[in-house]
Amino acid sequence: MTPVPKTQYGFVYNTTSGLQLNESLPIPTLKPGQLLLKVEAAGLCHSDLHILYEGLYCGDNYVMGHEIAGTVIKTEQDEAGAYKIGDRVACFGANGCGNCEFCRKGNDNDCPNAFYNWFGLGSDGGYQQYLLVKNPRNLVKIPDNVDFAEAAAITDAALTPYHAIKLAKVNPLTNLLIIGAGGLGTNAIQIARTFGAQITVLDKKQKALDIVKKLDPELKAYTELPEDLAKGSFDVILDLVGAQQTFELSEKYVKSKGIIVPVGLGASKLTFDLSNLALREISLLGSFWGTSQDLVECLELARQGKIKPQLHTISLKELPKAIEQLRNGQYEGRTVLIP
Amino acid sequence: MTPVPKTQYGFVYNTTSGLQLNESLPIPTLKPGQLLLKVEAAGLCHSDLHILYEGLYCGDNYVMGHEIAGTVIKTEQDEAGAYKIGDRVACFGANGCGNCEFCRKGNDNDCPNAFYNWFGLGSDGGYQQYLLVKNPRNLVKIPDNVDFAEAAAITDAALTPYHAIKLAKVNPLTNLLIIGAGGLGTNAIQIARTFGAQITVLDKKQKALDIVKKLDPELKAYTELPEDLAKGSFDVILDLVGAQQTFELSEKYVKSKGIIVPVGLGASKLTFDLSNLALREISLLGSFWGTSQDLVECLELARQGKIKPQLHTISLKELPKAIEQLRNGQYEGRTVLIP
Amino acid sequence: MTPVPKTQYGFVYNTTSGLQLNESLPIPTLKPGQLLLKVEAAGLCHSDLHILYEGLYCGDNYVMGHEIAGTVIKTEQDEAGAYKIGDRVACFGANGCGNCEFCRKGNDNDCPNAFYNWFGLGSDGGYQQYLLVKNPRNLVKIPDNVDFAEAAAITDAALTPYHAIKLAKVNPLTNLLIIGAGGLGTNAIQIARTFGAQITVLDKKQKALDIVKKLDPELKAYTELPEDLAKGSFDVILDLVGAQQTFELSEKYVKSKGIIVPVGLGASKLTFDLSNLALREISLLGSFWGTSQDLVECLELARQGKIKPQLHTISLKELPKAIEQLRNGQYEGRTVLIP
Amino acid sequence: MTPVPKTQYGFVYNTTSGLQLNESLPIPTLKPGQLLLKVEAAGLCHSDLHILYEGLYCGDNYVMGHEIAGTVIKTEQDEAGAYKIGDRVACFGANGCGNCEFCRKGNDNDCPNAFYNWFGLGSDGGYQQYLLVKNPRNLVKIPDNVDFAEAAAITDAALTPYHAIKLAKVNPLTNLLIIGAGGLGTNAIQIARTFGAQITVLDKKQKALDIVKKLDPELKAYTELPEDLAKGSFDVILDLVGAQQTFELSEKYVKSKGIIVPVGLGASKLTFDLSNLALREISLLGSFWGTSQDLVECLELARQGKIKPQLHTISLKELPKAIEQLRNGQYEGRTVLIP
Repeated sequence: MTPVPKTQYGFVYNTTSGLQLNESLPIPTLKPGQLLLKVEAAGLCHSDLHILYEGLYCGDNYVMGHEIAGTVIKTEQDEAGAYKIGDRVACFGANGCGNCEFCRKGNDNDCPNAFYNWFGLGSDGGYQQYLLVKNPRNLVKIPDNVDFAEAAAITDAALTPYHAIKLAKVNPLTNLLIIGAGGLGTNAIQIARTFGAQITVLDKKQKALDIVKKLDPELKAYTELPEDLAKGSFDVILDLVGAQQTFELSEKYVKSKGIIVPVGLGASKLTFDLSNLALREISLLGSFWGTSQDLVECLELARQGKIKPQLHTISLKELPKAIEQLRNGQYEGRTVLIP
Repeated sequence: MTPVPKTQYGFVYNTTSGLQLNESLPIPTLKPGQLLLKVEAAGLCHSDLHILYEGLYCGDNYVMGHEIAGTVIKTEQDEAGAYKIGDRVACFGANGCGNCEFCRKGNDNDCPNAFYNWFGLGSDGGYQQYLLVKNPRNLVKIPDNVDFAEAAAITDAALTPYHAIKLAKVNPLTNLLIIGAGGLGTNAIQIARTFGAQITVLDKKQKALDIVKKLDPELKAYTELPEDLAKGSFDVILDLVGAQQTFELSEKYVKSKGIIVPVGLGASKLTFDLSNLALREISLLGSFWGTSQDLVECLELARQGKIKPQLHTISLKELPKAIEQLRNGQYEGRTVLIP
Repeated sequence: MTPVPKTQYGFVYNTTSGLQLNESLPIPTLKPGQLLLKVEAAGLCHSDLHILYEGLYCGDNYVMGHEIAGTVIKTEQDEAGAYKIGDRVACFGANGCGNCEFCRKGNDNDCPNAFYNWFGLGSDGGYQQYLLVKNPRNLVKIPDNVDFAEAAAITDAALTPYHAIKLAKVNPLTNLLIIGAGGLGTNAIQIARTFGAQITVLDKKQKALDIVKKLDPELKAYTELPEDLAKGSFDVILDLVGAQQTFELSEKYVKSKGIIVPVGLGASKLTFDLSNLALREISLLGSFWGTSQDLVECLELARQGKIKPQLHTISLKELPKAIEQLRNGQYEGRTVLIP
Repeated sequence: MTPVPKTQYGFVYNTTSGLQLNESLPIPTLKPGQLLLKVEAAGLCHSDLHILYEGLYCGDNYVMGHEIAGTVIKTEQDEAGAYKIGDRVACFGANGCGNCEFCRKGNDNDCPNAFYNWFGLGSDGGYQQYLLVKNPRNLVKIPDNVDFAEAAAITDAALTPYHAIKLAKVNPLTNLLIIGAGGLGTNAIQIARTFGAQITVLDKKQKALDIVKKLDPELKAYTELPEDLAKGSFDVILDLVGAQQTFELSEKYVKSKGIIVPVGLGASKLTFDLSNLALREISLLGSFWGTSQDLVECLELARQGKIKPQLHTISLKELPKAIEQLRNGQYEGRTVLIP
């Protein structure tokens, strides 16, 4: 068993003082059934900015970092436990209890017992060296050919569009519009292609479109939708922006009986046209992160080479700098921090 | 074959002059494949008021009346046609073409070829003595023990909540809130009870609640939801009002992963809380009228005695009076007009 | 904490010596995360006979009894554990691991890690005084108004038909044939009625039909199906017998696109007509016990008074006598044993 | 309007005299609502052999040929009809009535009114020069870049596996075994790949495997499944052979909760292991041809280049020779006959 120090460093978020480096965080003692993880990689996400700068509230006084991959280094499970020391694992961020109606039905991403108590969003997460995992069910093994940084990015930046795409039942007959070609968007494209969809991408930034066109030259990619595009052209619209303007585009261009999934949280309120929704039987589906089984499936698709997140890594100590760069839009692909 | 006169009377709607009695409407000649119906009953619906007084637009210059039951009295089908002279039939109001993707999939209520061309809403309907049916697929046989007035009321006032209830997959484990205990509400209660749901009804009018309590004494019925009712109490909410206020109640009291169906068109726009929708994975499902197969099923439930619409009948000539009474809220149950 | 003795009595099954009373079974020591249950009631099931007399194999050397209700009397969970001392609980017999693909998707009844290691079927069950529960997720709380004996019977005799009925998507439009009006049959009727189905029951024994007619006077109940009954009359057929003869009836009387669920294991092999299955798109759905969430739902329906298992109780010590009576068909309703 | 002769040639099947060329078949007069098609291509199918040589009964005295593409040359529809003269169309072979419960729900391939009255299987089909189409809903437009011979082959050899693949909800996480790499098999592979599945193909003939490996080099293709392949490896198994031997392989290698679709009709009866089916919750799904909307979707995938049936064409007059070659296994890909 790897020797574990008594303290570690990590970045703690506090609603009054913001995000602070703490060099002497305690490393928790394990209770029965728990595990300790050496954090190997933790992804930086736009949601972190929403918390730090836009007042999104998920709790107080916790180590941030909700895209986590690591190695099991200590366990208080018996020999029959699902995870062993040395196992390479990704954290299922939504951290379901495993016992409630939601978890029993396979909707553990909606577990009310974990609400505002998700990894790195309300309870301690990955911007530290060691992470206590109270409920080992919220770990998923990483395939050998997927590295820690990729696994970390997959736990959210791939899992979130994957869940939305499954929720919307995307298939080879789906005419799909993806609004937003950033980190989630590039993963959404890879996933939707795997499901066989016909894909159109919309993003105001030509640079973002250039990147996705490299990923998939057959893609239709626009900074503005063509004027002659018929209303009701898309079966499914994934709106990774979530502003009133993109939502109104979605309402106009979604087909009768179609689905809009507003994944991005760009606005706090959105206004819809009731008779358009009702008379054309449009569905607005809330989609949150993904289930633990979705995470298993995303990692399997990564193993098959069908999801390959765009990312670069830097040291966890450089988190403040990485945050500034993300704020300023100076990035391509996910930033993953290595403790 | 019943002798058919050359002219008839009916009420024609025109966007400039409103609804007018016309005593010499022509009776159309049938083209190949078409049928002529003697209208036996036509229900009066709140949507009629929306058209007459609130600017709802579905087309111009047509005979109104979209809840129609009648007798086949003439046919230009061959001997293999699905309907024979003397058949008692209800009209499938949404009037699907039968050939498009929507009709082929069983979603003929969303047929784009019939949009704004529904019976009595854009094209000629039941407020006349004889109705041309261009596409016999949009007829459904009425069971012997269901009378014409009941069948007419079922084509919308039962069909609409039935479709919404099926869309929301209501079952015996569903905790269901129905907002609005009027005509659709009383049918919604009967249908939801048949599907086994636990039902709570909310309506501002105590009188309306008294009526539904008579229908189902075990019902929970409130003019305001109890203060101690937990947020997230209902799996499914049918909002038969569709105002911002009822919608906000729905957002608050719907369970995570729950479904809101805004059936009523009480407002033109509604505003939702995006992070509540996304983080709790709420679905807003647009629901429009019902499919032709839903209508078959509603009539079957009526045959079994499980749906019994509350209604009273008056002569079609008294339509203007009936409209005034509906406007003034002086009614209990559906008004059905008999030509 | 209740004092727990060191030994107890129980009935151990062994493939060579059969079922034996053992008066000095050890009471296991708890490992981290585990619970100890005082068994309050354990139901006797036909499957027990299949094991004892018909060579059904589920493992060797274990305490039988797979319908279990009890009280939590000891726990090695921390304070956040889902169950507390004194909790009244039912065992989820299929005993899912909670971590595999099947459990994560909500299909924990199919958990391959628990195959042949179910409570009382391969691993220790309820025909003893105290039961070790390794994985607390496999417990479900019993509503206050449901007694232990009812809860025990519900864990299988109600859960099994409940799961099959949900699998077959039974609803108010379903014309349902239930073959077999014994213990599972009477529960199946209550459940199917709650889901709104039109029910026909077939059983060779008039006495069994008399009992179910008392439960539901509107039921159609036959010792033989009427000669004039049309082929293809039933949307769904639950065959609680599972013999070639009942299966062939099912093939004949199931509607096109209909579903046959062969729940009873009356034969080891069944032969179907391939072109009838293919050309009429019939589905044969294997159905095993029920999921843990199904058990939660069955107990909720029992709380609402919609499921009320027919049962009588005797002392666990009298198990051998109860087995003889079950073999001889001298019973009405479930026999539940009280330790 | 193209001049239409009074008589034509065609191949009529009769249960006593077999298939006979008739040089003076009448060309029917159209009744209201009907269309006349000039047959441009008609595919030859193994089912034809089942009828001619193995006693499969679908009716008597009809022109065979159930894979049909043609041009509309005459119509008795009014101007609002869905098809115009000159339209290039494929026939929806299962020939649904459009009015029954099955057609209204979108399951028009199971229409009981069309049973044994399918195009070329019970009622007149494509092995003639001109075809009467009584119900224009059973036509589907052919995309411009798909030729008649391809469209004909798609109406069955692609539609049948497409329907089965949709029925089994194949997706990128599906481990799929296809048994049989003939005409349907090669189309099944193309379709399953479009749905993202992981595909394994089993066929006794190495030559057939060589062909499919050319289509998709990444495919796993075997003449016998590897000895070390784990039981329960496949989520879905399409058995295009349908013999007892292939069925037993399917039972063994299908995963718990998995799906077997026995598409091939290689045996008249199949025997399954009841406890394997029940305890592992396996589904056997009957799958018949495909729906009219499935045909629309197959033609759309052909338009996109994702389905490209392997075929060669010969003159309709050479049908007897083509039948002999098919019987002797001397073919690669579909034989399509051109009148």
